Amino acid sequence: MEQAGEQALSSVVWHPNTQMGEWDEFGEIVQGRGMHLIDKKGRKLLDGVASMWCNVWGHSRPELVRAITRQAARLQHSPLFNLTNGPAEELARMLIETIPGMHRVFYSDNGSTAMEVAFKMAIQYWSNEGDSGRNRIAALSNGYHGDTFGAMSVGYMPGFFGAFKGQLFPAVRFDAPGGREAPGGPTDKEIEEECLGNMEERFADGTIAALAMESGAQVAGGVRIYPRGFQRRVSRICKRHGVLLILDEVATGLGRLGSMAEYEAQGGRPDIAAYGKMLTGGYLTMSATLATKKVYDSFLGGYDENRHLFHGHTYTGNPLAAAAAIENLRMYKRRNLLDKVAKGARVLGGYTEEISGMGRVSDVRHAGMLMGIELSRGAPKGGPSTNKIIFEAGRRNGVYLRTLGDVVMLVPPLAMGPADLRRLVEGTVRAVREAPLDG
Amino acid sequence: MEQAGEQALSSVVWHPNTQMGEWDEFGEIVQGRGMHLIDKKGRKLLDGVASMWCNVWGHSRPELVRAITRQAARLQHSPLFNLTNGPAEELARMLIETIPGMHRVFYSDNGSTAMEVAFKMAIQYWSNEGDSGRNRIAALSNGYHGDTFGAMSVGYMPGFFGAFKGQLFPAVRFDAPGGREAPGGPTDKEIEEECLGNMEERFADGTIAALAMESGAQVAGGVRIYPRGFQRRVSRICKRHGVLLILDEVATGLGRLGSMAEYEAQGGRPDIAAYGKMLTGGYLTMSATLATKKVYDSFLGGYDENRHLFHGHTYTGNPLAAAAAIENLRMYKRRNLLDKVAKGARVLGGYTEEISGMGRVSDVRHAGMLMGIELSRGAPKGGPSTNKIIFEAGRRNGVYLRTLGDVVMLVPPLAMGPADLRRLVEGTVRAVREAPLDG
Repeated sequence: MEQAGEQALSSVVWHPNTQMGEWDEFGEIVQGRGMHLIDKKGRKLLDGVASMWCNVWGHSRPELVRAITRQAARLQHSPLFNLTNGPAEELARMLIETIPGMHRVFYSDNGSTAMEVAFKMAIQYWSNEGDSGRNRIAALSNGYHGDTFGAMSVGYMPGFFGAFKGQLFPAVRFDAPGGREAPGGPTDKEIEEECLGNMEERFADGTIAALAMESGAQVAGGVRIYPRGFQRRVSRICKRHGVLLILDEVATGLGRLGSMAEYEAQGGRPDIAAYGKMLTGGYLTMSATLATKKVYDSFLGGYDENRHLFHGHTYTGNPLAAAAAIENLRMYKRRNLLDKVAKGARVLGGYTEEISGMGRVSDVRHAGMLMGIELSRGAPKGGPSTNKIIFEAGRRNGVYLRTLGDVVMLVPPLAMGPADLRRLVEGTVRAVREAPLDG
Repeated sequence: MEQAGEQALSSVVWHPNTQMGEWDEFGEIVQGRGMHLIDKKGRKLLDGVASMWCNVWGHSRPELVRAITRQAARLQHSPLFNLTNGPAEELARMLIETIPGMHRVFYSDNGSTAMEVAFKMAIQYWSNEGDSGRNRIAALSNGYHGDTFGAMSVGYMPGFFGAFKGQLFPAVRFDAPGGREAPGGPTDKEIEEECLGNMEERFADGTIAALAMESGAQVAGGVRIYPRGFQRRVSRICKRHGVLLILDEVATGLGRLGSMAEYEAQGGRPDIAAYGKMLTGGYLTMSATLATKKVYDSFLGGYDENRHLFHGHTYTGNPLAAAAAIENLRMYKRRNLLDKVAKGARVLGGYTEEISGMGRVSDVRHAGMLMGIELSRGAPKGGPSTNKIIFEAGRRNGVYLRTLGDVVMLVPPLAMGPADLRRLVEGTVRAVREAPLDG
């Protein structure tokens, strides 16, 4: 069956995270207009996943288009190797003002590389401090930090990354709260206490360089939202044992869960924090790893001492991406984005009970502009994936969805207003109802 | 001394691959014009390293600016997850037409991720084929494939990545020819024969998934140019033992050494090849990992079989970057870029003897639009790095340089004409002469 699909496909693109055998064709998006993507056949899709969790203001937003166009006329790229450029400098200043406690901004190109940079900073920090034995990274089970080898090592998902296990470095892992409580299993509170107890014990041996975790919620791990106070308590345990705290805010910061630095809402302070996705408003790829003065200072020294960070991509600090990001962050302030997010979060939250109660749904988890609808029914065996089934049902209902495992993700553009949010939820509910799932 | 520099620095950018302690300030580039970068103080710098080896046509090239601007008005981004977009599709078709023997294009965001994708394809290929024991990656000593953990593991440079050794997976490594012959040591020919003999022997045990190497030359490893026939012979040994061949053409392909697919000039065919840097003309970050039908087909199957590639970044296939790349590749044809490169290569090559003969230079290696000038004098101990000393001497002479170790790199924009190339070489020669190096 896959073979037929394969032959029908005229495209030569190998799509990410996709079993190519199950697709005959991919709808070709030709235009973005506000909260909608429009495909070649004229179908209008409400962007229910913010074009993979990154879009902030909708598509073709004039201010952002203008920022890119203006920069494109002047300086498209010049590197940060021995030189700098205005947009990269200005954006870094804005980030340092926005994200509290941070001292320096290291640019890279996507969330995976931002986290790889964070791991390298943490490991080398200890080697710079003369404690090379403190070189292990700790993480939470179900954490996801990207798809490169370092990111896969720390955010190891057995179902995704099993084939590469032999090449991944071992991370110390702790089961974390925030998922659906299994009937007869431990309560979420019990999981939390055990998690913190285990950390306390494990961190005492002085081999852990850093703990890495998503800030506020685990997103790719199935929308698992931390209980109140959990992250603050983790932060305290790290401080007590001198373990650096790395927060992955790539998907959850810059407003997704309601705050610019999600760690301000959660409590506790990281030593290193990573941002991406929303940074440019969703138009160009760019990420940033922020570090405290303590971390940064350990990398200073004479050149011969080899204390500096050996990391750098060609387009690091690209002026076009930075220009988009500057205008995006200005709009956050000018247009009170966090207020819009708070309002949107209330609209989404208002549906939690209704969706939880419907058939085929086993749980709904929600925070800010993020909702995970866990299905109790999956795809029939041997046929297309749940993602494909739900995507097609969504498309029939005018919404663009991308499902992760059995969790339908609602991750709308941050500025999506109440009317569109209602359309989105209602379209999604219809899609879940109509989808040809098992049983 | 670093502390003074540190305090004087008003910037909050942490620069890539940079000992921040040795810089008081970075010249801020405000405009790119043709082959020049212009800084805030009005200094015009001839771009001697193609803005980190990526620029093709110079800066602010109207056709490329127009391509970005036009696309920016219509569709800035929409993801390849369940969907596709026109520019990503068209660019993939162009790449498949340009790079012989390839079947599918997997997009990512930079050279490191393109190579991580290649490693994942190779390892999972064998696990898909039921041979999970064949999971080791082989590589050449002095090879460089990027800065993420997988890339550092395969392209391990002890001086750069020592702090992370405990987290890197072991690669099988072979000493390769192409460097400067040490007096009294083996000849380059002897090194080549031993390298090939070792491969032949080592590959026989059936544990090697793939050999990864830069195509044509090792660039970051100090401009080591393979002897004629070497790469073809490596390719044959791989084929004979069923080892996949991964070619890193990120820095050397798309015209840098004279060919679109450098492996056409070298002989031999890879199973997987990675491109980046020049892809968008040097304006936006984007990379592509190309695979043969044999590799691609092994990833096809039912969704439940988990045969597909678990890799994908948010902005994969970004339409803005793809639009720039399409126009760039069209210009390659329309403006006969490879002819310009051939002409430029002759100009550069014409200086080899003169530069080799000058004081402070121990060797000059050259291929296409790439030249490495190896210095016999380094930076005085305890002071700034050779890179900083040469960069500043270059700036005084109107050229932008970035040195790697003791090798001054000349990697001009591919379309740089003879007059500018002469200015570049002459400025570089003056810089090397005047630089306050040891002795």
